[in-house]
Amino acid sequence: MASLLVDGIGVLVTNGPGDGVVTDAALVVDDGVVVWAGERRGAPDGAEERVDAGGRAVVPGFVDSHAHLVFAGDRAEEFAARMQGRPYSAGGIRTTVAATRAASDDELAGNVRRLAEEAARAGTTTIECKSGYGLTVEDEVRSLRVARGFTEEGTFLGAHVVPPEYAGRADEYVDLVRGPMLEACAPYARWIDVFCERGAFDGEQTRAILEAGIAKGLVPRVHAGQLGEGPGVRIAVELGAASADHVTHLTDADVDALASSETVATLLPGAEFSTRSPYPDARRLLDAGVTVALASDCNPGSSYTTNMPFCMALGVREMRMTPDEALRAATVGGARALRRPDLGHLTPGARADFVLLDAPSPIHLAYRPGVPLVSRVWQAGREVR
Amino acid sequence: MASLLVDGIGVLVTNGPGDGVVTDAALVVDDGVVVWAGERRGAPDGAEERVDAGGRAVVPGFVDSHAHLVFAGDRAEEFAARMQGRPYSAGGIRTTVAATRAASDDELAGNVRRLAEEAARAGTTTIECKSGYGLTVEDEVRSLRVARGFTEEGTFLGAHVVPPEYAGRADEYVDLVRGPMLEACAPYARWIDVFCERGAFDGEQTRAILEAGIAKGLVPRVHAGQLGEGPGVRIAVELGAASADHVTHLTDADVDALASSETVATLLPGAEFSTRSPYPDARRLLDAGVTVALASDCNPGSSYTTNMPFCMALGVREMRMTPDEALRAATVGGARALRRPDLGHLTPGARADFVLLDAPSPIHLAYRPGVPLVSRVWQAGREVR
Ligand SMILES: [Zn+2]
Ligand SMILES: [Zn+2]
Repeated sequence: MASLLVDGIGVLVTNGPGDGVVTDAALVVDDGVVVWAGERRGAPDGAEERVDAGGRAVVPGFVDSHAHLVFAGDRAEEFAARMQGRPYSAGGIRTTVAATRAASDDELAGNVRRLAEEAARAGTTTIECKSGYGLTVEDEVRSLRVARGFTEEGTFLGAHVVPPEYAGRADEYVDLVRGPMLEACAPYARWIDVFCERGAFDGEQTRAILEAGIAKGLVPRVHAGQLGEGPGVRIAVELGAASADHVTHLTDADVDALASSETVATLLPGAEFSTRSPYPDARRLLDAGVTVALASDCNPGSSYTTNMPFCMALGVREMRMTPDEALRAATVGGARALRRPDLGHLTPGARADFVLLDAPSPIHLAYRPGVPLVSRVWQAGREVR
Repeated sequence: MASLLVDGIGVLVTNGPGDGVVTDAALVVDDGVVVWAGERRGAPDGAEERVDAGGRAVVPGFVDSHAHLVFAGDRAEEFAARMQGRPYSAGGIRTTVAATRAASDDELAGNVRRLAEEAARAGTTTIECKSGYGLTVEDEVRSLRVARGFTEEGTFLGAHVVPPEYAGRADEYVDLVRGPMLEACAPYARWIDVFCERGAFDGEQTRAILEAGIAKGLVPRVHAGQLGEGPGVRIAVELGAASADHVTHLTDADVDALASSETVATLLPGAEFSTRSPYPDARRLLDAGVTVALASDCNPGSSYTTNMPFCMALGVREMRMTPDEALRAATVGGARALRRPDLGHLTPGARADFVLLDAPSPIHLAYRPGVPLVSRVWQAGREVR
């Protein structure tokens, strides 16, 4: 791959040492990796290709560490009804499970491709992808195989909800998930996740499933505290999960546990937006020293968006993050939630995932809400848009 | 201009008789005007050009009836500071006034073009455009001349704020606005507007300026009730204004006055989003029978978005509009606020302004927040994107 110099960058967000920002900057990429970043007058010569940023801003590609892209159908009517007062519950997931089971592999892959491309056009250069709408051994395996075509960050979420055919027999379903389903799915996933919530899986079930996954070499992450307080965060921290996600409802002990751990708090404000629910308190987490990530939670029930700038704008408007904090959460925060030290920053050695904005400053991502400001996107040094 | 058949429309929103929606529909355009809309099996033959909508949704182009596009500079730093707690006040407008006065005509026109094109890509087919960052006779005239290059809907807003050189002499400035400034500006505008608000212009000043404008053949519209209750709505209704805009703070008498008038209530939720303020109560207005419009309020201080789908999503999430109501407000509502019976609908005789969505249903405009779903846009029958 040819080396590339991006010159004339008005503001370059590296997330590197100091405040992680360089003005009047340049960036040099070789073989898909950042080899140099700094003030433009110091940039090394000799790159084979050159891009002029025209004084605009360059930021790391967005790392969306929480998405459910493998599904069929949509739930637009449920959304419209909810906006007229019907509350959101985890049960609606079953609608998507039925549609997903009925879909062909090609239909599922086509849907993931559509959403992954939509995300990439909006600056997302890494996207995590969960199973969890199959809920049979076969449908979970094929969900993860489909996801693998688009990302290295596949997550086994057999424990998304108890499927209808196991109604009243949740413990039998848990045994399936931690037994034969895990056995079949583990080769296709990096992560294991559980929806730990009233109406989904309780603390004991969550722990049993995650421990089985760890024994199979998967790393845990947990849906916790979306609809109410619960044991999810405590379990996540105890088991060394990479991330506890949603975390809208937290006890002080939960916040303390997160702050003294390596577990990232991943906030998903798209879900609160689309379910008209109270937002998580990012300020409380940041002030306590917790590492915070922002992710899309893209799914057809509660957050049908792939748009990370939209999530950043919500982080600023609704969760009292500064624009800088929101951008960090959507880049290096997501990378930490995926334990990917090569992502989320633009210092030498990083994978060359970066975004040229149609704006002079990254503040515009929150200052110009709803406006598509992503002009060009590179992933591992290759332009994808 | 060749006639055009748009066929294979999954859902066509006409805003016509009944519920204003046709499924499995087609649309025929001739000479820039809609000549037929209905179920596809009844579509007349013979169009010279044909577009296949592929089962996706077609909606009227968005009518953005409130925008301030003629300005220079941005206020990203002010936005970032506000998000950390500094409150919004009308005074920040003066920053933009200074930058606008210092800019060349070409710079101003370039900025309007950039924003108008951005709006068009997001489905806006009509955009109103106000002066109000010049605040001298010469700078207001050139603002309106620049606006005229992009829209027929120019609005004279000399009474945006009292400029610094008239500090402490507001009544002298009002005399300038209703005298020589109006005289010079009226030939270039269709509308006259006043920012009736504490910190800007009071009721007496508002009335004097609007009456002078009416005498010059301009039609009034009023910024009213953005930051607090005030006399703006009452004056708007009494003077037969086309629209009262913002209307976040309303007395019951204000709501009654709007309901029994032809004055539209134009809601600008982008401003509440970007100033972290309480949203107007759309439900109260709709339930009282008031005609409601949604508009962007695009301006660099309090709402730097051109994106009408974003405003619709806020209308649904924050203002308890249904997705249908939000779409009506952003199309036919805006058209009523601009007294344009030829816009905002797709029944025979309408200007052929329409949008093909990358979605099977218009609900997706609110259900998929932040995602650019506008695929193709036609204005007066000509594709603009
Ligand atoms: Zn999730
Ligand atoms: Zn305004």
